[in-house]
Amino acid sequence: MSQDLRGEQTERRSRRVARGLVIVNTGDGKGKTTAALGVIFRAWGRDFDIRVFQFIKNTGARFGEHRAAERLGIPIESLGDGFTWLSKDLDRSAALAQEQWRRSREAILRGEEDIIVLDEFTYAMHYGWVPVQEVVDTLKRRPESLHVIITGRYAPQELIDCADLVTEMRLIKHPYDDKGIKAQRGIEF
Amino acid sequence: MSQDLRGEQTERRSRRVARGLVIVNTGDGKGKTTAALGVIFRAWGRDFDIRVFQFIKNTGARFGEHRAAERLGIPIESLGDGFTWLSKDLDRSAALAQEQWRRSREAILRGEEDIIVLDEFTYAMHYGWVPVQEVVDTLKRRPESLHVIITGRYAPQELIDCADLVTEMRLIKHPYDDKGIKAQRGIEF
Repeated sequence: MSQDLRGEQTERRSRRVARGLVIVNTGDGKGKTTAALGVIFRAWGRDFDIRVFQFIKNTGARFGEHRAAERLGIPIESLGDGFTWLSKDLDRSAALAQEQWRRSREAILRGEEDIIVLDEFTYAMHYGWVPVQEVVDTLKRRPESLHVIITGRYAPQELIDCADLVTEMRLIKHPYDDKGIKAQRGIEF
Repeated sequence: MSQDLRGEQTERRSRRVARGLVIVNTGDGKGKTTAALGVIFRAWGRDFDIRVFQFIKNTGARFGEHRAAERLGIPIESLGDGFTWLSKDLDRSAALAQEQWRRSREAILRGEEDIIVLDEFTYAMHYGWVPVQEVVDTLKRRPESLHVIITGRYAPQELIDCADLVTEMRLIKHPYDDKGIKAQRGIEF
């Protein structure tokens, strides 16, 4: 991309945001991904360009957020194998996360959007699949006006140190533990 | 509404949700309203009927969420005077909150939607404008399949006791305190 075009894009965006933020939603509670979706909802209402990379969740997942995003023209790109602590093929989980990081890193440095969401990305750092330092370096090199939102438990301290806004979602009460109620479609997925 | 029609409606909804939840997002951190918006986003992707009552925020506010919701056909009804702890006319703030509660209570008992959001409603209870017991009684009498989401700081204990899912958003790091950065359009409002 030519220097001129880059300058023009930066100028276009700088009318919208003074300074892009690095936002981290972490903790054991509900609402980490959901709050990121809420930001998308708001930002879409302001005509921001948004792109979402989902880690962990199965490639091609069709949850409520995918259906909504598709209708609104917001790309949600999922690449994962539904990794949990019970997964057997960790090499595959790691490889998918690394590939997804390669793609999102490219988008962050290119900076064509106003907001980039890396959903459940903390796990990839926590399990050592993606070096935290490389993430921090990439965030520091991003275009000034780009917001990046990262969600997931176990946010590494180095990421928290480099973030602007960090919220911990704490579980106070959960029906699935206490009352045996199943996760609800349209609410949680 | 006739008994038959009510039965039909309940059946229609019960295909979607096993059981409506009372969800409370509280705490000092960011993301309480935003996570409620995220649920709306998901639920809209699943064709749920949604209605949002905003307390506190100025009537007719045009934040990102209002713009987005308008485009998606989700009614967000704001009634408030932008109350803060610096407000002078508390009688007016109280009266607006009580009127808004009257409207939302009616909607909750009527139960025509799948999800009703009472945004920043905790303050009305915290400041004694709306009796918590009346809220709890209303929630208990709602149609079985209706989800109700309540946001705001200082959620009263009686509300937490009656809720299914309670999350506390805790502030870990905030740019406006630490670095003097202003709230960002499209992200926070």
